[in-house]
Amino acid sequence: MTIAQSPYPEDKKKKYGVEILCIGTEILLGNIINTNARWLAEELSSLGLSHYRQSVVGDNLERLQGAIIDISNRSRILITTGGLGPTPDDLTTQAIATAFNAPLEERAEILIDIKEKLATNKCAFVESNRKQALIPCGAEVIPNPIGTAPGIIWSPKPGFTLMTFPGVPSELKEMWINSAVPWLQANEGTNQVLVSKVLRFTGISESALAEQIHDLLQIRNPTVAPYAELGEVKLRITAKEANRTKANQLITPIESELRLRTGLQLYGYESDSLASVVLELLRKRGQSMSVAESCTGGGIGAALTAIPGASEAFIGGVIVYTNLMKESLLDIPAQMLITHGAVSAPVAQAMAKGAREKFQSDWGIAVTGIAGPAGGTQSKPIGLVHFAVAGPHICSSTSENFGTHRKRGDIQRLSVIRALNQLRILLLARG
Amino acid sequence: MTIAQSPYPEDKKKKYGVEILCIGTEILLGNIINTNARWLAEELSSLGLSHYRQSVVGDNLERLQGAIIDISNRSRILITTGGLGPTPDDLTTQAIATAFNAPLEERAEILIDIKEKLATNKCAFVESNRKQALIPCGAEVIPNPIGTAPGIIWSPKPGFTLMTFPGVPSELKEMWINSAVPWLQANEGTNQVLVSKVLRFTGISESALAEQIHDLLQIRNPTVAPYAELGEVKLRITAKEANRTKANQLITPIESELRLRTGLQLYGYESDSLASVVLELLRKRGQSMSVAESCTGGGIGAALTAIPGASEAFIGGVIVYTNLMKESLLDIPAQMLITHGAVSAPVAQAMAKGAREKFQSDWGIAVTGIAGPAGGTQSKPIGLVHFAVAGPHICSSTSENFGTHRKRGDIQRLSVIRALNQLRILLLARG
Repeated sequence: MTIAQSPYPEDKKKKYGVEILCIGTEILLGNIINTNARWLAEELSSLGLSHYRQSVVGDNLERLQGAIIDISNRSRILITTGGLGPTPDDLTTQAIATAFNAPLEERAEILIDIKEKLATNKCAFVESNRKQALIPCGAEVIPNPIGTAPGIIWSPKPGFTLMTFPGVPSELKEMWINSAVPWLQANEGTNQVLVSKVLRFTGISESALAEQIHDLLQIRNPTVAPYAELGEVKLRITAKEANRTKANQLITPIESELRLRTGLQLYGYESDSLASVVLELLRKRGQSMSVAESCTGGGIGAALTAIPGASEAFIGGVIVYTNLMKESLLDIPAQMLITHGAVSAPVAQAMAKGAREKFQSDWGIAVTGIAGPAGGTQSKPIGLVHFAVAGPHICSSTSENFGTHRKRGDIQRLSVIRALNQLRILLLARG
Repeated sequence: MTIAQSPYPEDKKKKYGVEILCIGTEILLGNIINTNARWLAEELSSLGLSHYRQSVVGDNLERLQGAIIDISNRSRILITTGGLGPTPDDLTTQAIATAFNAPLEERAEILIDIKEKLATNKCAFVESNRKQALIPCGAEVIPNPIGTAPGIIWSPKPGFTLMTFPGVPSELKEMWINSAVPWLQANEGTNQVLVSKVLRFTGISESALAEQIHDLLQIRNPTVAPYAELGEVKLRITAKEANRTKANQLITPIESELRLRTGLQLYGYESDSLASVVLELLRKRGQSMSVAESCTGGGIGAALTAIPGASEAFIGGVIVYTNLMKESLLDIPAQMLITHGAVSAPVAQAMAKGAREKFQSDWGIAVTGIAGPAGGTQSKPIGLVHFAVAGPHICSSTSENFGTHRKRGDIQRLSVIRALNQLRILLLARG
């Protein structure tokens, strides 16, 4: 196979920096999730290196070669994972050697290392193990401190370097940190670092938020990028600068401006969740909370207790799926359930008050609604949910119609977010 | 930009079938893990379609165009995810239109749909939303039943078809099943059908299961492939035959053999969950259940109520995070809590009995454990969880040490699975 022409115009050659190529038919079949690509992506970001493309190809010599040649024509650095094992479907080293017309040579020191490792693990050396000691002439070995598959660092042609790593995450990580990180810092050091800050919003759609900060989305350094998830929107501010301090100096004014424009819709930072933010607000006040859940069925409790140390502020809750249980566990008057129905503002308020009293907590929150797919009526359609918060000197309720087109799980998740956000807003409003 | 030359020799053009291109700088930055690629890979496998490459590019018009053109030169079908939102960094549709020199046109029916959805969600229509109604002339719309971002199916040149989907997994999945699956079956179908059956196991590791069925994993038609997830293992049996009946004739004996060898470890099929299986077992007997949750904090209730119609068998539960609440809500004797501690077999049993009595249900299940990251001791380490099931004439408890290396969330999820499985086994054992 000859080296194909780059599909990119001559003057744009090598405009790419780093690319990641993950090798393995098991990824293409969907058998495993490609966590290596994500881990490497985060590593490259933290080194201040942009990478422009990730690819996955299967254990097929011709396609693997094709992908390697394509990448060598457009990028400076290729990082591969997988395909370094001893079995016939491990083809990475062979594909690289063929792609660049380099002979393979057996390295005695690798062979010794493989034999030692197999002996330690009480495994017999078989002829196929010899394959892992073969590397292209001129390549440098990346030792594998854990397994039998070493990687290589090699520049088979001017302006292009490749590094190979095993697909086993623990081996990849160890080898990356020992070999690739120092190499990249020495050879690709941009003298610039990339610093990111994530801001989290709820109660606003991605498009409404984007409209509100339209001008800030145009800035080049730092950049501001929105990401929508169910019931929330994230903004990532990313600055590129000579050092961390300077990068933060670029981020701070943009963050302040965003905070100013969005007010209470900004609920947290980085890995915050509404549950963690609510628990922290309560902890600061030395207050506690409890929940009374109908259609969310325990989802609010689960979200709160997912946070380490939740017990400091979260006392507990009741999941009341039937009217009888609403009566007996939360002392909701039977007449109220008959008059207004279980999905109503009075019942939501009584549930929140009931939880607060039962658990002797400062705050009680309640959710009652119709998550579907059955149970909707003309006046109370699927997606209608009532929320209530009871606290010292206050009991307020709101309702939301999330829409009959929503799935049960989404209505439940949106209800959890909305309920926690209602308590957050009240806690903030009351100082 | 002109369409670049294929890097592949003329006679090898279009040797590829399907490719997946995921679009989003957040993937390249490592902010999110590319679960969409894996989901699509599994879907394509189950349709009997091989896909040969997956790529990820960022939100950059030129690079996105370049990737699309490359793929159109080597493959028959391109599936994209992401970049369909309303914000300026959502560039997929524009990149496609530019890549194939097609003008964009505003589709009135999409605009109406967007406006209706925004109105339902009480969001204002802003000018940027209009962008989502633009699609290349000649493209067919893939309606989005959940969000505002429709996709397209389009053949911009002979022998090449692309399909675009949003990056939000729930929207992608819904649209894929409604639009792409029938299209692919009609247009890419071979004379053979691929029929799959998923068997779900719990209480056994992937490697132990693989060992147990080692010979069956070697068969070529049907194939048996294991997929491990947290707390469970799936086996997918896939047969390729002239028609569905013949395919099923291949699957049935393998399924029987698997059932024979694995016994109660096989808990369900296809999209079953432990919660759905337990609810169905109860429904068949006309029995009911309730929960008492400590370290799972509502997770069992949430898993049960995620199933439509859960209220037929699930009455409710209590989340008791403090000793005081265990006493007051479930009548656990204070002395028992002092003597044995909250994380103990007697307390788990008393909680299960307490739930059963409070909710007057046939069955009560309880979980109490140490999910970490704090709270572990020498005798009761992080990861230790006690489970109990109380029912007519029975109250049994078990414990499990999931290991101190586990994350809080994983210990909680494993506990939910284990608790539901304990009830399942008891229900099956008692006929």
